[in-house]
Formats: sequence, C-alpha cells, structure tokens
Amino acid sequence: MGKGLTKRSENYSEWYNQIVSKADLAESSGVRGCMVIKPYGFAIWEKMQAELDRMFKETGHQNAYFPIFIPKSYFSKEASHVDGFAKECAIVTHYRLKNSEDGEGVVVDPDAKLEEELIVRPTSETIIWDTYRKWIQSYRDLPILVNQWANVVRWEMRTRLFLRTAEFLWQEGHTAHETKDEAMAEAEQMLHVYAKFVENFMAVPVLKGTKTESERFAGALETFCIEALMQDGKALQAGTSHFLGQNFAKAFDVKFATKEGAQEYVWATSWGVSTRLMGALIMTHSDDYGLVLPPKLAPIQVVIVPIYKTPEEFESISNYAIVLVNELKEKGVSVKFDDDDNKRAGWKFAEYEMKGVPIRLAIGPKDIDQGTVELSRRDTPGKEGKQQVSQNGLADVLCRTLDEIQVGLYSRAKEFRAANTTSVDTYEEFKQVLKEKGGFILAHWDGTPETENKIKEETKATIRCELMDTEDEAGVCIYSGNPSARRVVFAIAY
Amino acid sequence: MGKGLTKRSENYSEWYNQIVSKADLAESSGVRGCMVIKPYGFAIWEKMQAELDRMFKETGHQNAYFPIFIPKSYFSKEASHVDGFAKECAIVTHYRLKNSEDGEGVVVDPDAKLEEELIVRPTSETIIWDTYRKWIQSYRDLPILVNQWANVVRWEMRTRLFLRTAEFLWQEGHTAHETKDEAMAEAEQMLHVYAKFVENFMAVPVLKGTKTESERFAGALETFCIEALMQDGKALQAGTSHFLGQNFAKAFDVKFATKEGAQEYVWATSWGVSTRLMGALIMTHSDDYGLVLPPKLAPIQVVIVPIYKTPEEFESISNYAIVLVNELKEKGVSVKFDDDDNKRAGWKFAEYEMKGVPIRLAIGPKDIDQGTVELSRRDTPGKEGKQQVSQNGLADVLCRTLDEIQVGLYSRAKEFRAANTTSVDTYEEFKQVLKEKGGFILAHWDGTPETENKIKEETKATIRCELMDTEDEAGVCIYSGNPSARRVVFAIAY
Repeated sequence: MGKGLTKRSENYSEWYNQIVSKADLAESSGVRGCMVIKPYGFAIWEKMQAELDRMFKETGHQNAYFPIFIPKSYFSKEASHVDGFAKECAIVTHYRLKNSEDGEGVVVDPDAKLEEELIVRPTSETIIWDTYRKWIQSYRDLPILVNQWANVVRWEMRTRLFLRTAEFLWQEGHTAHETKDEAMAEAEQMLHVYAKFVENFMAVPVLKGTKTESERFAGALETFCIEALMQDGKALQAGTSHFLGQNFAKAFDVKFATKEGAQEYVWATSWGVSTRLMGALIMTHSDDYGLVLPPKLAPIQVVIVPIYKTPEEFESISNYAIVLVNELKEKGVSVKFDDDDNKRAGWKFAEYEMKGVPIRLAIGPKDIDQGTVELSRRDTPGKEGKQQVSQNGLADVLCRTLDEIQVGLYSRAKEFRAANTTSVDTYEEFKQVLKEKGGFILAHWDGTPETENKIKEETKATIRCELMDTEDEAGVCIYSGNPSARRVVFAIAY
Repeated sequence: MGKGLTKRSENYSEWYNQIVSKADLAESSGVRGCMVIKPYGFAIWEKMQAELDRMFKETGHQNAYFPIFIPKSYFSKEASHVDGFAKECAIVTHYRLKNSEDGEGVVVDPDAKLEEELIVRPTSETIIWDTYRKWIQSYRDLPILVNQWANVVRWEMRTRLFLRTAEFLWQEGHTAHETKDEAMAEAEQMLHVYAKFVENFMAVPVLKGTKTESERFAGALETFCIEALMQDGKALQAGTSHFLGQNFAKAFDVKFATKEGAQEYVWATSWGVSTRLMGALIMTHSDDYGLVLPPKLAPIQVVIVPIYKTPEEFESISNYAIVLVNELKEKGVSVKFDDDDNKRAGWKFAEYEMKGVPIRLAIGPKDIDQGTVELSRRDTPGKEGKQQVSQNGLADVLCRTLDEIQVGLYSRAKEFRAANTTSVDTYEEFKQVLKEKGGFILAHWDGTPETENKIKEETKATIRCELMDTEDEAGVCIYSGNPSARRVVFAIAY
C-alpha cells in the first residue's frame, strides 16, 4: 500500500523523505542544499501564506520589501548578532562573468571584484534597521509594523527538504516602537498569532514559551517560541518572535524625538515562520499511506473519481459530478472531478491518498441508480473511513465532514502530545524516558547555562522552552540538585 | 502645490524621482542599485500580483519555486543564452565568514571557497530546464504550466527606482509543451494576458508586437512584447513572452516519449513582468501634483477627511463617516477615514493628492447640516474636479465615480498615445519627429539588423516592435530605400 512507502515504524526519516518526494511536494536541485518546491507543495505553502498574511494585516501590519544583499560591515554593527549568528552564509564577491579564453564557457571576471562583499541575507534585521533610521524621526513615525515575505540563505551543511535547507522561504516581521512595553506586547501578540494559525489551520498543537538565554536569537533579549511534537517524539520549533530591546536601534543609531522632546532609542521586535512549517505539517498528520492534510490547507479538499466501463456510464456519472462540483465550489470547497480517461481508478485512489486529499468520492453506475456515492475519509484510511452516503444534501455533508476532519486531526495530535509528555523528577528517569519514549519531558532545571549544556552534551536533549502559562512549582534540578522554581520543557529537537 | 514637486515640463526625470520618494513608493538602500519598496508602494505591487496571479491560474498555471542560485556551468549550456545575456550578475564565491584577527568585525573565510561559483539568478531558464528533465518522460507529463514569483539580480550600472534596479521582483512563467504550435500559442496567450492586465487594471494602453532579432531575449526564437508610451514621449517595454523553441530542451537534454513512442525534444516558453510596471504606472498617469492611481490598483480608493473645530463637530462628522465607511467596505471599496487629530486637513489633502488616492471626500459641519459632502477627483485636480454631492445614495455614486476614473484614465492615456504616434516616410522627417515630439514613430524598415543598428547609433531610437495586428503596406525603408513590407514601431525607450 501507499505506493511502496517505507513504514514510519521502520525508518521515520526515510518515510519523511519519501512522502516529500512521492506526494510531489519538493525535491533537491542541482544546487547543493537548495530545494525546488513543486506545484503541489507550493500550493499548500500559498494557503499558509494567504492566511498568515491576512492575520498580519488584521493586526495592523503592512508588507514591504528590503534588499536581498547586506553589506558585510552591517553584520559587525550589532556585536551579539554577529557573534551569535551562524557565519555560514552565501557571500557575493564579484559582479561580472566573462567568456573564458578557451571559448568553452564563462569565468568570473577578476577585475569585477566588489569593494565590500555582500552577504545574501540570512535574516534582515541589519539592513532593515539601517533603513528605519531614515524613516524614524519622531514618536509620530512610530510604531512601524512591517513584514516581508522573502527568501533567505543559510549555508547549512546537512540539509533536509523543508526542515533545513540552504535557501528557504519565510516571512520576517520587523517592528519599531516607542516603549519597551509596547515592543514586548507586540512580540507576544505575534507569538499568539503564530500559535493560532498553527493550531487552527495546520491542526498542529503547540506549546508557547520562552527560550533560555543560550537558545535565544542572536541580538534578542527575549525569544518567544512555539514548539510542536512530531510523531517520532522529536520537537520542532515552528515559529519564533523576538523582543530585541534597543540593541539594533543602538547599533544603527535609530533615535526618535519623544512627545516631551527628548531623544530616545527605538524598541524593536522581529518574528518569523518559514517553509519549515511544511515539515511540521507532514510529520504531525501523515501516515504509512502518505500525506494527510488538514482541509483548511488542502489544495484539493474533495476529489471525485468516476468508476465506469462504458461511455454511457461515464456520462451519467459525469452529469451528476458536474452539478456537485458547482454546488461545492459555491460553498467555497476546492473540488476536483478527475475525469482523466488515461488512468485507472485504482491508480487515482493511490495518488490522492498519497497526496493527502481529505475526502475522496467514488461514483459508479450503481451509485447513480441508488442515488449514493462512496465517501472515503483520508484521516481514517482503509475500510473504517469508507461509507455509502446519499446524494441528497451531499454538499452539506461534505462541508461538515471537512470541518470534522480538521477538528479531528487537531484532537488526535493533541492526544498524541498528551500521551508523549512526561514529568520526571530524576536524571535517571529523564534519560530513560528520552531513550524509550522521547516526546516532551517536563523537568526541573537550576536555570544555569552550565547545567543546560551538560544535559545537552550527555543526552542531546535541549530545553525547548519555559512555558508561558505555567505555574510555579518549587523543586530541585534533575542534574545539579539545586533549587528550581518551575519545570521547563526538554526534548530532542529537529 | 504638490508639496514642492518639480514640474514635469521642467525636468521629467527629476519629477519621477521625487514622486517615487514623496509618495512613499520606494527608496535607495545601503546596497548599490538595490531598492527598498516601502509599504505604500508594495501595497500597489501586491494588488498587481494578486490580479496577475488570478489570471495565470485562470489560464491553467500553477506556482512553484526554484533555487535563487544557478551553478555557473549552467549558463554555458545554452550558447545563445550565455552569449546574448548580460554577464553583469552577482556571483557567490564563498560560503563562510569568520571573525577578523583584529576582533573588529568579520572577513570572508578564504578556506570556504566554493568549488563552482554560483550566480544569483538573473532569470531562471537554465535551472528550471535542468529540473524539467526530471519531471518530463512522456507526453503524459506535458504540458507543464508553471510560474514563479521571485527576486532576480542583474548588476546594472545605472539604476533608477523601479525602472532599472540591480535586484527586482518579478514573475517568470516557464512552460513545456509537446508541439511547436502549442508552445507558440502559449507565448501569444500570455502576451494577451499581460496586455489585458496592463490595459484593464493599470489603465495603460499598450502596443502588442514582436521584437526584431537583435532585440530578442537571448535563447528565444520569437519574443512577443507589450510597449507603453510614457508622458515624456519615451517607450517602456512593459512585458515580454518568449517562444524558446527547443533550445533549452536541447541544452538540458529534455526529451519526451510521444504517443507514437518516439523521443522528441520538448518545446518551451517563458514570460515575465516585473516591478518595472510600477514605473509605467507612475509615468502614464501622474501629474505635477503627485501620483495618480487607477482605482483598481489604489491601496486606498476613497479617503474621508473631516473638517472641524470643536469636538461636537468632529463627533457628528465621525458618526456619519463611520456609517459611510461600512457601507463602502460592504461594496468592496477600500476606504480610509483619516481621523488623525495631529494633522491639519490641508496637510492631509496634500498628502493624499501626492499619494494618488482616486477620491477624496471632505466633510465639514455645514455638510452635515446640508446632507452633503465635498467630493474631489484625483484625475482632475483643482476646482474642476471638486463638487458638492448629496449624502443620499453616496456609496453608489462613489462606486460609479471610481469606475469612471478607471475608464477615464485609460482613455486619456490612449488619446495621448494617439496624439504622439506619427507615421513618417523619410529619414529627415523621422529625425525631426524624434527630436521635436518623440513618441511612437511608424516607419518602413528594410528588415536588416544593419539598418536597425545604424538608426539606433544615429538617433538612439530602437525598433520597439513589429505590430502583431498590423496590415501589410508596401513601402521603402526610410534609411536604405530598400523595399519594406510593412511599417514597424520606432521610439526612444526606457
């Protein structure tokens, strides 16, 4: 089954790679670490983009576009940024090719060397704050609530489609504020926007929390994050929102005149999610038969496959299908009637199963006679999810079923997370759970980077976050035995 | 007036730069030749994108995403592409920075040199056809109708915001077909899609034609183009669609099995429009008071400015305005009630005039008493476009007026083009019209690149296109006196 897909239990990583390939989501390109996002995969990303963009605008943000290149010197201006940020990036040193002397191709023209090298943006804080200096003079110019949809490049050594690629697509919000409180509120607000999107649209439950100092974004005073749990028990950071304090304003000399006439540095936030979300989507819902998509992000929500032998049979099925298609389209359902005569119904079933289409309708001559269709739900593959339903009021039934699938996927993922979240009180227990079960582990930590590092070195588990809405609970650190005020969330992460 | 805008008649180029800046459309960045597209300018571009994307999808295209980097060797594979294409591009040679020895910043790590340099894409035919080889085996895999929205980089020496920048945003369609006819039909279809968009949404009339051999895209067998006329009498190429024959298929070895089982090379097209369209939009409609926007692309279509002295006056105006705003929003009109108390009404008038908002409503206490508003149309600035109108049925009046403005701007531009298109029969006349009037010049040409080059060298005028829907008309070349079958369109171009 599943067109020869490796089972998750056999090799989760291989299963993931095969889904990405067989569901036509993405593939590797001729450029090391850079991916091609195929039309079907891109259609899912477009749906994510559209909803996120709507949510950003609803919260008062506007889009803009900043240069892809950043002069090398900009990176040195914010000390913790350059120190903390990975230095693996694509560097442009020349601006011209010329014909090679042997006439066989082109070579870099050594005379066309840039005076200052340009970095292909790994993130845009520096170029954007260099721009904001020109935009901000007084409190009247604040807040600036800007987002950009862009490609960024980080020269990763080990890449995996969607999860870690040299080039990826993302959005990065960069806001500027009068006060610390306002900036902090913005950073928190955007984390809640992300959580709402990921839970309601991707049907992926997330923990909301803050990063420890050592896991923070370079240049940030506080990093808020959402963390999701994948089926293999590993955590995936799905989005981050940073309170940057006045660090970038100071580095790029961005001051504003207050209402009282004083000159003060501007407060900043930045926040982003990326095509990595595609990885989270795949690894939360999909099964051994292929991709499983929540209806809100499915490029095709309902597919209709006709089962026929004669042209007359096809015609009567087709007549009904066309009416249903129009009815569904009017209700805003994305529907495809697959009338391709070159492919067998069985091939189509496997194809749409692999591609995660939430509902499949099969219609044969008998169905036409009886006024029924065969409805199969992708979230419950096999016989269990298959039923004969009446053509009467079918469009409404399908809409309700899509809603049910959306909610059901979320509940299932949340149950999985609950079953794979463990509280431990000793380091032995911690290591045992990590080894045998994985998942999120709630444990006491003494708050020091030293302990955090030791645990990471010894177990590969990292502190994913300190939960935002957790209660204090005095305890002792599982590693050092020192006092701890509350538990934090550990996991092995993607 | 116009917040100190230079008059078009004084210095058109300076006027253009000032509009781009004062209307908050875009600005130069700290990176040579790269622009920052500001939120207001980007909102216009987003509206263009949304409509174009809808039109592409309506004609069966899907979006995808390909890598920003192209290995240098790819460029050499299609000979005419590498020969004809400008070699000014951004070249990535290294992939790592390191801390400098003086501790003051970062330097390029000489140990992190790429084996093969990567080019930041100036266009994506090569990387895409390298990918299509994997996607295409049989006629069943065709056609491939793919588009990508992307940033591209061409290292231009002389840059102007929107018109010519090192980095720009665009879309590039890349399609693959079984037959020559099908590919040719696709290339033509997309040119018509562009023309329809530019005329109906941007309200910019265009000529549709084909490029001469020397003006063709490198690697194309035929380049279709739309050409618009700017207010200063110069032409602007607004979009191109290329029939690429089998050139890229041959270069990247992309063959398919035909229905009959033979192996044949695939036929290709590519087509694109870019942020350059923003330049065409500005230079077609705007005036000495600022930007003029066609309603279909205006981020704000109607702005309401209250005129008041007392809080009571403001309240009664505001009560009415809020009702009107909701009524307009329901009709799909983008409307802003500018209740900012920190800015004077006069300042707001100048601001929205500069930003090209199609309709401005001013409402004072007297209007509230009389049940009127003052309506000003941006397409007819000054007293002429100002009128008192009744609040009764105002929303409908505004919708009609927006339609009128859209149509009116197009008509005005078309009249301007008609008045600035001249047929000439001698080279003397040609040079005189070019010098005194500019615009499009219809003249006979003998069809040789030699004559085309001579005329270009002597006058700077180029052949913009051979019109697609022109009639044959025997004549003699204005330059060589040799026979010519029809007139072609000359102009000095951006």
